[in-house]
Order: sequence, then C-alpha cells, then structure tokens
Amino acid sequence: MAVTLAELARRFQGRVQGNPDLVIKRVASLDSAGPDDIAFLGDRKYIAKLATTAAGAVILAEAEAAHRTGPALIVENPHLCFARVAQLLHPSPAFKPGAHASAVISPSAHVAASAWVGPHSVVEAGAEIMDDVYIGPGCLVGSGASIGTRSRLVGHVVIGDRCVVGEDCLFHPGAIIGSDGFGFARDRERWQKVPQLGRVIVGNDVEVGANTTIDRGALDDTVIGNGVKLDNLIQIAHNVRIGDNTAIAAFVGIAGSARIGQRCTLGGQVGINGHVEIADDVHVTAQSLVTGSIRQAGVYSSSVKAEPADKWRRNAARLHHLDEMARRLARLEEKLQQHSEESEN
Amino acid sequence: MAVTLAELARRFQGRVQGNPDLVIKRVASLDSAGPDDIAFLGDRKYIAKLATTAAGAVILAEAEAAHRTGPALIVENPHLCFARVAQLLHPSPAFKPGAHASAVISPSAHVAASAWVGPHSVVEAGAEIMDDVYIGPGCLVGSGASIGTRSRLVGHVVIGDRCVVGEDCLFHPGAIIGSDGFGFARDRERWQKVPQLGRVIVGNDVEVGANTTIDRGALDDTVIGNGVKLDNLIQIAHNVRIGDNTAIAAFVGIAGSARIGQRCTLGGQVGINGHVEIADDVHVTAQSLVTGSIRQAGVYSSSVKAEPADKWRRNAARLHHLDEMARRLARLEEKLQQHSEESEN
Amino acid sequence: MAVTLAELARRFQGRVQGNPDLVIKRVASLDSAGPDDIAFLGDRKYIAKLATTAAGAVILAEAEAAHRTGPALIVENPHLCFARVAQLLHPSPAFKPGAHASAVISPSAHVAASAWVGPHSVVEAGAEIMDDVYIGPGCLVGSGASIGTRSRLVGHVVIGDRCVVGEDCLFHPGAIIGSDGFGFARDRERWQKVPQLGRVIVGNDVEVGANTTIDRGALDDTVIGNGVKLDNLIQIAHNVRIGDNTAIAAFVGIAGSARIGQRCTLGGQVGINGHVEIADDVHVTAQSLVTGSIRQAGVYSSSVKAEPADKWRRNAARLHHLDEMARRLARLEEKLQQHSEESEN
Repeated sequence: MAVTLAELARRFQGRVQGNPDLVIKRVASLDSAGPDDIAFLGDRKYIAKLATTAAGAVILAEAEAAHRTGPALIVENPHLCFARVAQLLHPSPAFKPGAHASAVISPSAHVAASAWVGPHSVVEAGAEIMDDVYIGPGCLVGSGASIGTRSRLVGHVVIGDRCVVGEDCLFHPGAIIGSDGFGFARDRERWQKVPQLGRVIVGNDVEVGANTTIDRGALDDTVIGNGVKLDNLIQIAHNVRIGDNTAIAAFVGIAGSARIGQRCTLGGQVGINGHVEIADDVHVTAQSLVTGSIRQAGVYSSSVKAEPADKWRRNAARLHHLDEMARRLARLEEKLQQHSEESEN
Repeated sequence: MAVTLAELARRFQGRVQGNPDLVIKRVASLDSAGPDDIAFLGDRKYIAKLATTAAGAVILAEAEAAHRTGPALIVENPHLCFARVAQLLHPSPAFKPGAHASAVISPSAHVAASAWVGPHSVVEAGAEIMDDVYIGPGCLVGSGASIGTRSRLVGHVVIGDRCVVGEDCLFHPGAIIGSDGFGFARDRERWQKVPQLGRVIVGNDVEVGANTTIDRGALDDTVIGNGVKLDNLIQIAHNVRIGDNTAIAAFVGIAGSARIGQRCTLGGQVGINGHVEIADDVHVTAQSLVTGSIRQAGVYSSSVKAEPADKWRRNAARLHHLDEMARRLARLEEKLQQHSEESEN
Repeated sequence: MAVTLAELARRFQGRVQGNPDLVIKRVASLDSAGPDDIAFLGDRKYIAKLATTAAGAVILAEAEAAHRTGPALIVENPHLCFARVAQLLHPSPAFKPGAHASAVISPSAHVAASAWVGPHSVVEAGAEIMDDVYIGPGCLVGSGASIGTRSRLVGHVVIGDRCVVGEDCLFHPGAIIGSDGFGFARDRERWQKVPQLGRVIVGNDVEVGANTTIDRGALDDTVIGNGVKLDNLIQIAHNVRIGDNTAIAAFVGIAGSARIGQRCTLGGQVGINGHVEIADDVHVTAQSLVTGSIRQAGVYSSSVKAEPADKWRRNAARLHHLDEMARRLARLEEKLQQHSEESEN
C-alpha cells in the first residue's frame, strides 16, 4: 500500500510540513527507516535522531516540529497517529474465504461464507463462526462456542465449549480460552473435582497473548470486557471479571472471582488474590501482590528492586528480624523518654 | 440427567428437608439457580441469599438448615456434597469409541477398543492407550508413552515419549508432559546439553491445568503422586517428586530435584528452589520463595502485599538500607546502656 | 550404541582407571546404574555412593579417583564429560527424510530433501526448511520463516511469519516464536494496536523450553544470541536482545527493548523491566526484579525467602511502616546526641 503525506494528514487530522505529495509505503523506526518510510518520534530524548534519520517523513508533535527539516506529519499524539498509520499501511493479511481441506468442521457448526478455517483446525458441533473470521492452522473451536465478526485466531488457539468471543478480537498462538477452573472440594485427604460449568465471555476488540489461559466459570461465567488487552502467559481464573480497556502484562495471575475495574493496568508478574475487587483506574506495578480489595484509583506497589546480592543479603537477613527491631526501637524511645523525664526532675 | 432430592440424599448421606420428590436437573449458583436447579451455601456470609434464591433446592449444613424454608439437602460438608452432585448431574461428555479419520496412529501403538482418538491427534509407535481413554483434538502421545484407564486429554495436549499417565487423569489444553529438563554442563563460555533421558510418571486422579509443563527427569524420573491437582501455567522441573493430594496454583515454579510432600498447597507464583525438600502438610502463601528445605508442617510465607505506591516507595527505599538501620539501632542501644551505667555511677 | 571405556577416554581426553575394554551402553545415575552403564560423581557429598553403585564405570575428577575401586574415567570436568558421553550414547532419534502425508506444505515453501515434516504440521508460503531439520507433529512454520540446518522442533511448536531460526536449535512443545509484541497507543479510554512488524531472529545452538513465548519486534527485530538456553514458560517481549550463551530459568519475564548481556543467568521468576540494559556476566537470583540498568558484572538480588507465616506476618507488617521506623531512629540518634552534648556541658 502507498499513500501521500497529504492523504495521511487528511485521514488523521494532521498538518503536513514539507512535500505533501511524498509517497509513503511503510512505517519504520527512526534508525532503520528509508525514503519510502514514515517514522515517529516517541520520546524527546531521541530528538537528535531527527537530524540523522533517512526516513522519508516523521510523525511529530507541534513542539518538536521545528527540529525536523525534512517532511513531517504534525499531529497531537504522534504515538497514536503512528499506530493508525501502521494499521493503514500494514493491515492484517487478507485471506480467501472457505476452509482448508484438512479442517474438520462439524455438520452442525455454522461457518459464515466469508470466514476461513485453516489447515488441521477443528470446529465442533453447534459452533458459530461469524463473518470475516479468520481461524489459522491447528485451532480448536469447541462445541457450541461462537466467534464474532472479524475476529482472528492466528493459529494453535483453543476456544472451549460454549465460550463466546466478541467482534474484532485477536488471539495469539497457544491462547486457551475455557479451560476448567481450579475448583475442588476437600474430601478428607483427597480433592473432589467441582465440575466447571460456566463459560468464558470475551467482549469486542480484545487481544489475548500467546499461551495465556482463561478459565471458564465454575457455575456462572468468566467475563473479559471490551477493549481488554492481555499479554502472553497470563492466567485468569474462574469467575474473574475484567473491566473494559484494562491492559495486563505477562505472568499476571488473577485468582478466582476477583473483579478488576476499567482502564486498569497490571504490571508483569503481579498477583491478584481471589475474591478481591479492584476499582477503575488502578495501576499495579510489576511483581506486586494484591491481597485485598482496592477501592481508590491510583498506583499500588509492593515491588522490590534488585541490588548487588551481597548488599541485598545483609538487608534481607535483617528483614526477617524486623519485628524485633521495631520492638527494640520502641523500647529505646521509651527509655530515652524516661531519661529525659528523670533528667528534668 | 434428573434425580429426585430423595435420591441425592440417599447417594450422598444427606437428609431431605421439604419435598423429597422434587426433581433436580442441574447445579447452579444461588444467584442464577431456577426451580430445576440445586445450589449450595458455601459461606455463611451469603446466608441472606437463602431467602431470595429461586433455586429448587439448596445444599446446606445442619447449622444453616433453619434459615431455609424451601427444599434443602442437609449434609455434613455442603461443598463436597455439591461437588458430588455436580459430578452426577454434569458428567464429562460421553464419546463413542474409535478414532477420527484424521488421527494418525502408529501400527505399533495399542489403542483400547473403548478409547477415542480425536481429529488431528497423533499416537506414536509403541504407545498404549488404555480403556475408556478420551484423547481430544490435536493431541500428541509420544512413542512408548502410556495413558491409563478413563484418563482424558481435552485437546492440544502433549504426552512425551515413554511418559506414563495413570488412571482417571484430566489434562487441559496446552499441558506439556515430558519436555526436556533444563540441564546443561558448562563448557567454558558455552553450555553443553545434558540429554534428558528420564520420564514423567503421573499417578492416578491427577489434574493438569492448561499450558502447565512437566519436564522429564535427567536420568531418573519426575514423579507426580496420586490425586495431585495442578493449576494452569505451572512449571515442574526435572526429577521433582510431588506427594499425593498436593494442590498447586498457577505460576508456581518448582526447580530441579525438589521434593514436595503430601497434602501440601502452594499458592500462586510461589518459587521452590532446586533440591529443596518440603514436608507433608506444608502450605506456602502466594509469591513466596522457598530457598531451603522445610521440615515441619505449617504455613510459610514471604508474601508482601501492595500498598499505595508513594507510600511503598518510601518503605522500599528504606529496605535497601535496613542493615545499616539495624547497626545504628544496635549502636544506640549500646550508647544508651553506657549512659545508664554512667548515670548509675 | 556401545563403546569401550578406552574409546570414551580417547574421545573426551580422559584417563582410564581399571578395565579399558569395559563396554558402556548407557549413562545412568549412581543410584540406578547397572553394569553396562556409566555414571558420574557431580558433587563430592555423594562420594560414599562410589562404594555402593552398581555402575560399570564412573566419571570422576582426579581428586576423587582414589575413592573408586572399580572402572572409572578420570577427566578434568566430570559434568561436562558426562554431558558429552550422554550425547554420544543417546543421540536424538534418527528420522527418515520426507513429510508425513497429513503435513500441509505450501508449494512455494522450500523443504530440504534431508528434512522431515511431521503429521499435521503446516509449512506456509515461502518458508525455508534447511538440511536435516526435524519438524515434529502439529507444528506451524509461518510464511517466509526459515529454520536452519539440523534444528529440531519436537512438536506443537509455532515459528511465526518471517522469523529466522539458526542452526542446531531445539524447540520444545508449545514454544511460540513470533507472537505479536504487546504494543498499543492510548486513544483516550481505548487502546489502539500498534502493528508488530519486526521479526524474531534466533541464533545457532539455542534451546527454547516448552510454552516459552518470544514476541516479534515492533519495527526492528527481537534477537536471541547464539547458545542461549531458555527454560519453559519464559516471556521475551518485543525488541529484546539477549547476548550469546545466556541461560534463563522458567517464568522470567523480560519486558520490551531490554538488552541482556552475554553469559548472564537469570533465576526463575525474575522480572526485567523494559528498556533496561544488563551487562555481560550478570547473574540475577530467583524472583528478583530488575528495574534499572546493571552496568557491572556480578550477582544481583531482591529475593526474600519464606519463613513460618506467623513470624513473617509480623515482619511484613513492620515493613509497611519502615519509613516511619527510619525517621524515629534518626530522631532518637539526634536526641541522644543532644543528651550527650548536654551532659558534656
């Protein structure tokens, strides 16, 4: 695809600086861009690259415009504009509708005429595949599941029985939607399985990363809101509910029945205890553990940063005596108070 | 399936309160249950729901029985009874024996006549699939592996060469049993692979969550005891041994040759160092790190809970000076002691 | 395969103690070895096993040689020698070249005559599979991807479009190379996807564990150096670069654009923040969080080890008041200083 700088400015509410007829074919980084490419300045600290980049054009904010002598597209939010330009110039690959000969599609499944089912994929009884859905190689869509319009399963994705996926979703390889929740009842020494009978309901415009797992609800459903973005290798337990436009990084584990608000962000390796409720607009930093509900928007943390190990070991050893230290500190305060009183007398 | 309340009471050693001929068709939550459903009260704090639920019947303990005016099944352990009722009313879907036309089964594999091998699954040379085993779509059973009676591979499961799975096991999609252990010998700058020649031995009645990985032993075997329950996205390294009826939550990593006792529980994101031994009946809370052996039953922890980030940052900054603080505290104590002695003289 | 002890000594620069004509067929552990097996002593603390093992021969360092009465192979580095002997005696299973009838190979893909493509695997348009490559069952090699000579995809592996894999690599099941990076631009409440257009470039002699994910670069590439060893369930984000011979344990998450040096080791569950740079020869202990660049070789840590939970809870509670404790300590020091000065006056 190829568009002029003027056309990009028109589509994305920008202002052209320099030649409006410049033809742009691709996006690229400031470092690797060539004359047919458009790059963007994401961070002021790279402003010197504006002088050295071979990019045909650069997307910039007004504040940086004066630093660019060559062609530029001046917009309010360069990162957002860059995303949209990249979407325009690099759309998901087109596909022809139909199904590969090796796909196994139940006669009772409904697959839209405009959808594609790839090689070695399986669509089970009663499943519904809507218009323009792309199902890549080696996927499994369970019985009674449904996949909304324009959603895309890259390949090796599992959507379990009866799960419901909205429109415009994107699932990366190894994503497992609708595995059983981890539910057992104690039976003296043993565990009795509690059958997991709920579903996973995924909203519209959701992205699910590679090898991320979302368990079906025990009785009611696990619910992923619209616009939720999940990185790779996340675990979402049964009956969790995630609010719209929340973004979650890799290795986050959300235990059963937790509720996460809208527009939250959870950093990598964060743990959320079961049954916890987290308000809208809460941000949790990497490796923190949320053990109780968070009612207020804001940033929360229990991250501990690494330092040289010999120094850390001394500090960590003291941590295991911190309660005793606190008591000794209180005793000292008391003693000194006594001394002061005595010396005043 | 449909059973009367009387029949449930008979099977599960309960007492009927109200109409014994009430027909129950499904289990459901107190919130969503209808007149054909049976719910249960899992936590006293929801006791008010007994008055409002539309459930046909509710499973209750004797202590709560008086709070329910409608039909009820009174039992000793409502959660356990509910699990059993749910198993009865919602059995795993039946399957017809045989193999899908697209399955690839080695002529030297043995597949029981009562087993099913699903579409695009592969059963390699010498593998043994016992009676009533269900192998869903897209699974791989490696050469010489064996799968015990009634075990169930939901789909997209890998059981590696020579691994042994017991009876009544359940494997969720993306579970990988028998990947190579992470074993290398240093060779100056480089790493030389140590071939991983052991197996994974999985006991009976084991459940393995989605995308969980269990490595084969280096020389001897990795062993998962009977009744062990593994959540999604767990890593169990080579030569680990896990005792019967231990339950492990998501993102737990157990390093090589560690031994975990019976009836343990490991919370989400717990790390267990290599070669560590953990006694029976040990419980480790979420995100804790076990660096040495634990010889005593009990609860262990190094969990740190998140707080507002500005407050946490001040505390965490001090943590990196805790050894110095401890020394200063000790000096103060000494000084004050001197003062006391001086003032006594 | 079977070799004499003399032949092993010749190949691996060792010295035979005892019968040089002893025939060795397998490697085994000291505990389980029999008369046809060779074991090794990896740790002096097991030296007593030299007297009791039934192993035909044992690989030993010179310092331990006197403790072994039976046949032995005396070498400089027993662990390394054992790795090489095991590689010799237990090579990867041979395969016949070609493709299974159920494999789906694009007419525009190039598959070397000496390579194998297993059942239900898919090789897309323009992909290149080099000499002696083994692609096990259920793999996906995306369009334009290439797999170098002698590399091995055990099964259920995904190599995404245009990704490049070097020679002699080993990929375990569920490894996903080339999933999209987690890149979004804020658009008021919503997230706009930034198309991920880079590749993953994997060097030679790389091992990638089960269910590990490596994201493609956003614009430029994600790069995994030669000899890198990745355990199971690791997440490597877009544009990360990992230096040669670095080894990384399970559940490590490396955020976008981080650079890891050569010969580093990262313990299990370590988190590395985005854009961080880590020097060569840096070692990070389990569960630590690296939030800033590390310029110096050495060991780094923020690991906190578990202790009995009642004790830990008291310490952890104080941790949330550590800043206040530090202030109180400083005030005490000040007061005592005043006292001293007053009493001197």
